Amino acid sequence: MAFSERVTRLKSSLIREILAAAQRPEVMSFAGGLPAEAMLPTLEWEGMPRTMGQYGMSEGEPALREALAAQARALGVDCQASQVLVLGGSQQALDLAAKLHIDKGTEILLEAPTYLAALQIFQLFGADCLSIPRERDGPDLQQLRARLEQHRPAFIYLIPTFQNPSGVCYSEAKRAGVAALLDEFGVTLIEDEPYRELSYDGVDAVPIVARLEKASWIYTGTVSKTLAPGLRVGYLIASPDLFPHLLKLKQSADLHTNRVGQWQALQWIGTEKYRQHLLELRDFYRIRRDAFAAALERHFSDLAEWQVPQGGLFFWLTLKQPLDTRTLLDAALARDVAFMPGEPFFAEPERNPGNLRLNFSHIAPERLDEGLGRLAAVIRHAQAAQAA
Amino acid sequence: MAFSERVTRLKSSLIREILAAAQRPEVMSFAGGLPAEAMLPTLEWEGMPRTMGQYGMSEGEPALREALAAQARALGVDCQASQVLVLGGSQQALDLAAKLHIDKGTEILLEAPTYLAALQIFQLFGADCLSIPRERDGPDLQQLRARLEQHRPAFIYLIPTFQNPSGVCYSEAKRAGVAALLDEFGVTLIEDEPYRELSYDGVDAVPIVARLEKASWIYTGTVSKTLAPGLRVGYLIASPDLFPHLLKLKQSADLHTNRVGQWQALQWIGTEKYRQHLLELRDFYRIRRDAFAAALERHFSDLAEWQVPQGGLFFWLTLKQPLDTRTLLDAALARDVAFMPGEPFFAEPERNPGNLRLNFSHIAPERLDEGLGRLAAVIRHAQAAQAA
Repeated sequence: MAFSERVTRLKSSLIREILAAAQRPEVMSFAGGLPAEAMLPTLEWEGMPRTMGQYGMSEGEPALREALAAQARALGVDCQASQVLVLGGSQQALDLAAKLHIDKGTEILLEAPTYLAALQIFQLFGADCLSIPRERDGPDLQQLRARLEQHRPAFIYLIPTFQNPSGVCYSEAKRAGVAALLDEFGVTLIEDEPYRELSYDGVDAVPIVARLEKASWIYTGTVSKTLAPGLRVGYLIASPDLFPHLLKLKQSADLHTNRVGQWQALQWIGTEKYRQHLLELRDFYRIRRDAFAAALERHFSDLAEWQVPQGGLFFWLTLKQPLDTRTLLDAALARDVAFMPGEPFFAEPERNPGNLRLNFSHIAPERLDEGLGRLAAVIRHAQAAQAA
Repeated sequence: MAFSERVTRLKSSLIREILAAAQRPEVMSFAGGLPAEAMLPTLEWEGMPRTMGQYGMSEGEPALREALAAQARALGVDCQASQVLVLGGSQQALDLAAKLHIDKGTEILLEAPTYLAALQIFQLFGADCLSIPRERDGPDLQQLRARLEQHRPAFIYLIPTFQNPSGVCYSEAKRAGVAALLDEFGVTLIEDEPYRELSYDGVDAVPIVARLEKASWIYTGTVSKTLAPGLRVGYLIASPDLFPHLLKLKQSADLHTNRVGQWQALQWIGTEKYRQHLLELRDFYRIRRDAFAAALERHFSDLAEWQVPQGGLFFWLTLKQPLDTRTLLDAALARDVAFMPGEPFFAEPERNPGNLRLNFSHIAPERLDEGLGRLAAVIRHAQAAQAA
């Protein structure tokens, strides 16, 4: 069999295995990042033109591109509809960016920790992943400068607003500092914002791409966290130098994004109905976050440290006594509780033990004591065994 | 700017440019491969569960995978639902296959001519494309054997049933011969069948993958030509050794295929309603093909040669006096008629001048004399200029 060299880097996906195990109905899962089923809107299809069944443009539906550009301009991003590429979810932006930028051995910059599926696809294409340590309010700017002085990365990939997995939201100072450094060194920014609208304490920061004066950029978003991931509708907005290449790569990947999902997204983006839906969504998730924070205090205060996230879907716990949390998985699943180990979110898992990512949007508050109690017991048991 | 080496092979897409030019309402276009708008079914959405809005499985919806496996088994392909991967259109099968098999310089085998977008994505990944010449009923088996004796291609990519662009449908003897050679040399087959159901003269050949005994294989199909391309729902079925890798590549590309399109496809595949729709579709296209054949006789009998295709969407014309048909485009568009030059369908365009691909499904029969008359005049004029 003749496989590409690339395939040797295809990892057995820990996430897939955990999510598969978490499918058992008796398992209480803090592992995934699924929107709450209760908050999925009812989709109305009346009035969709029959022509939505025909082939469409690789760029996406013109009206949707206009709506997405207007939404980005309202955030401060200076852009036109001609820079918007509609995608089959924002994950596809990572695939296209990898194709555009990464050869075997290409250096890129990532946060540590970063989005697991981004790390996986960049490594699949052969990237050499350099990490920037995080602080409470964003990346360590001194370390970022040091990396930029010593390396010529093809791009930096950041999730500045309610980061997955850490929950961090960059401060204004960090955003300004990152933008200035990228302009100074001429390094392309890929800014991934799936969680921007899931903001529970009024945070509404300006994207970093809006602050760039010279560097190239790709900004990417999705309706998966706010509307319905099953539509598979995301988008990227790119600086004009990158856009034509990304468009051709989109066309070669799958011709264009499904038009029925695009039409559905267009019924919401920019409307009063959508604004109302987002308000309800934020209220719903804020209550879950607060209940989760209270339950964590009850069960984990002696075991771990964390920040209460101001948005997004996750708590990021750092164990006071670090251990490789991947070794906890079997015991947790045996007790019918699932979580996401922190190690795979780092380019160097072995050097970063002792974190857990816990989703707070999925499990109803009244079940939290049971689930978090079970998980805490698993950790206590492992730490006792380690100490013995 | 730091681009990958791959991007240097991103071609300016002639197809995109032609199709863009053909958008002008006054242009009569024989260039595309769009289903006739009149035959797009009305999509009913009543009864779709709200959970179709949630994230789904990377493999695809279980019930749809079962239906697609049953459909393939009815064609003679021995397969299970566990081998079916639902895709965002069958174009995506080419992207995944390229990732699985192609490094820079990897040798692959293609028909000459072959599907343009396949050629482009395989070349984007750096493939060294070896061509097999076609005969009236499929590939030249002696040439295929010679290539297999002299090379170790990662795979062979074939469109055996109503090929795009040539319209050829492989005979039983060619199908058996290809399968025997691939088994003998252990070369993976990628069999692409978007046009299988568009069969106008009763042809119903068994896929080549059904005849393989040892070689690995990927079989790919779509609902784009029979139902609605705007849904972006296609699929691949793979031998069990390839499937797990393709699944991981699908997950890294876009997580999963949109579920609303999958649900819609499931309302049709395998039903009596779908069978009826296919009968109507075949009748509609058969009439258009026959009208086109008659109009070609009137306008092109002194200019070109062709076979009347038994299925699919295209006539493939070979000029009696070859010239580079790309040089005809501007003159044709100036006369408000569009066609697809044949050269880009070959890995070596310069060595294969003098073919045109003409779509017969889009233009109504009563307008054919006008459109084909204009196109013939453009060719006559160019040939006269060349002779002068």
